[in-house]
Amino acid sequence: MDRNSFLEGSYLALSGGVGGAKLALGLSHILEESLSVVCNTGDDFSHFGLKICPDLDTVMYTLADLNDKDRGWGLADESWNFLDAMKTLGHDNWFQLGDRDLATHVTRTLLLEEGKSLSEVTQHLCTQLGIKSLIIPMSDQNVATKVGLKDGSWIPFQHYFVKEKCAPEVRAFKFDGIDDALPGPALEACLKNSDLKAIFICPSNPFVSIDPILSLPGVSTLLKEHPAPIIAVSPIVGGQAIKGPTAKMMSELDITQSAFSVAEHYASLLDGYVLDNEDHSLEEKCQTLGIDTHITQTVMNSLDDRINLATECLEFSKLILKSRI
Amino acid sequence: MDRNSFLEGSYLALSGGVGGAKLALGLSHILEESLSVVCNTGDDFSHFGLKICPDLDTVMYTLADLNDKDRGWGLADESWNFLDAMKTLGHDNWFQLGDRDLATHVTRTLLLEEGKSLSEVTQHLCTQLGIKSLIIPMSDQNVATKVGLKDGSWIPFQHYFVKEKCAPEVRAFKFDGIDDALPGPALEACLKNSDLKAIFICPSNPFVSIDPILSLPGVSTLLKEHPAPIIAVSPIVGGQAIKGPTAKMMSELDITQSAFSVAEHYASLLDGYVLDNEDHSLEEKCQTLGIDTHITQTVMNSLDDRINLATECLEFSKLILKSRI
Repeated sequence: MDRNSFLEGSYLALSGGVGGAKLALGLSHILEESLSVVCNTGDDFSHFGLKICPDLDTVMYTLADLNDKDRGWGLADESWNFLDAMKTLGHDNWFQLGDRDLATHVTRTLLLEEGKSLSEVTQHLCTQLGIKSLIIPMSDQNVATKVGLKDGSWIPFQHYFVKEKCAPEVRAFKFDGIDDALPGPALEACLKNSDLKAIFICPSNPFVSIDPILSLPGVSTLLKEHPAPIIAVSPIVGGQAIKGPTAKMMSELDITQSAFSVAEHYASLLDGYVLDNEDHSLEEKCQTLGIDTHITQTVMNSLDDRINLATECLEFSKLILKSRI
Repeated sequence: MDRNSFLEGSYLALSGGVGGAKLALGLSHILEESLSVVCNTGDDFSHFGLKICPDLDTVMYTLADLNDKDRGWGLADESWNFLDAMKTLGHDNWFQLGDRDLATHVTRTLLLEEGKSLSEVTQHLCTQLGIKSLIIPMSDQNVATKVGLKDGSWIPFQHYFVKEKCAPEVRAFKFDGIDDALPGPALEACLKNSDLKAIFICPSNPFVSIDPILSLPGVSTLLKEHPAPIIAVSPIVGGQAIKGPTAKMMSELDITQSAFSVAEHYASLLDGYVLDNEDHSLEEKCQTLGIDTHITQTVMNSLDDRINLATECLEFSKLILKSRI
């Protein structure tokens, strides 16, 4: 790969948490300052009076190489004494807040209370952590993902995801506040920037990680209008999600658990779709949606896997651009 | 000592931080539910958006037997990973916030934001920590101790005490907000309770720990009017402070560094004064102020020392009461 060939122009990645952050890390290794990663903020919530942005934090910690590689979330070298003391003080500790992690939430809460926007706060945190790529909250306004259950009730996403461990059957999702939210200023600037060379939808949960971003007023239209190719990487491999409840949700929503269903879900937006080797049999079916496809190893176990997949995504975007000439 | 002889009626102690908490602990061992400790809140401040009440916390941790005995402040088994991460995020870490300690401040801030009073929050924290005695903030309103320096400027107490390590020369103190503050409801109830058998002024800094309590509107009058004997324990032994800047402040305020000066400072309130064996030569001079005196070991190194001094204070208060009959 000729790394320099990607450093002119800019690139955008849409990401949720852990799965998306893996590809974002690969892209960031190659693109550095040329990459912007817009993160879902629908999972954000207030806990113990602190503003917590799980997807922003995961991407931030991953790109700063501070994330815990074994646990899969949170910070490395973490301790849990705050949480232990909170338990002594009678709090319900369903959400794991590490002592180091807490510094992020305390800083964010403090700066937001001082009147800074979530974009400004995120930029400040990223600068302090030495992150070269730009990490963008999808919006500076509050959007709250709610999970609709079979009994007709709606629960906040973190309650579903962490407290209930994704056990309840889902029937729908909604993003409270989305109609009044604006795309983050840096996201809007990205999508209006003619230097933007490609847009990647990371292998994140389509329903609760990527859909909130796509549902922001104007974002779908800006994406469709932008000439840069839009390429998604399937979060489903061999009918299963690498991580998280995507496949379980598909089954509960009566959607076939397959990489093809994700292509269908994004179809109106996509120029390209990256499937895992294991799903090569779905390639032709995906192409019937009018989408270019690329087959490779999408399962990212090592840093090299992340960088390799990122490289293939970048080269795939170049191929799509070339094919248009 | 007949412990039961003290358990009828109630007792009040006025305390600052570490020094006062030692006697409060001794009293609490004997009196349990019969003891109320009113703490100075003039040192309280907001840090990283969190409400911190150093004297309340010290007394709380001490009475819950959670305090660090070697360090002399904060919690035992403490870790400092939050603070380390805050440093990475660019914060100035002049105030030491341990990971466990943080749970207290986060809980307090959360409950205050929910509309609870500082008295209610303190009661909640004490209940969770299993503290039998009642710990009372001197007021539910904010009072901010300011330290007047020789150059005419005023700095917040924690800046003087922690950031500047008490190095600047002082010329005066003021308690911003004191005129609009009310004594905490439990303090007022205590001082109006005819079952109150004795009031102890712990060996705390008279100028910045006890004076804020005494300066609250109505408190001095209620103290003077209450028939219970008021007994102070000298924080100065052999002309030196056991801990903290009391003696240094006296020198800078042109007050003789001696236990007698403290007796003089409180004279209009006191019925009894407890001096250390080392200061026996000052006993007669103190009596000229119209105050009964008691000489004993006031330096408290062990838990036994704390309980012994508390016992002597209680017996001294009984003697004073008897002498009135």
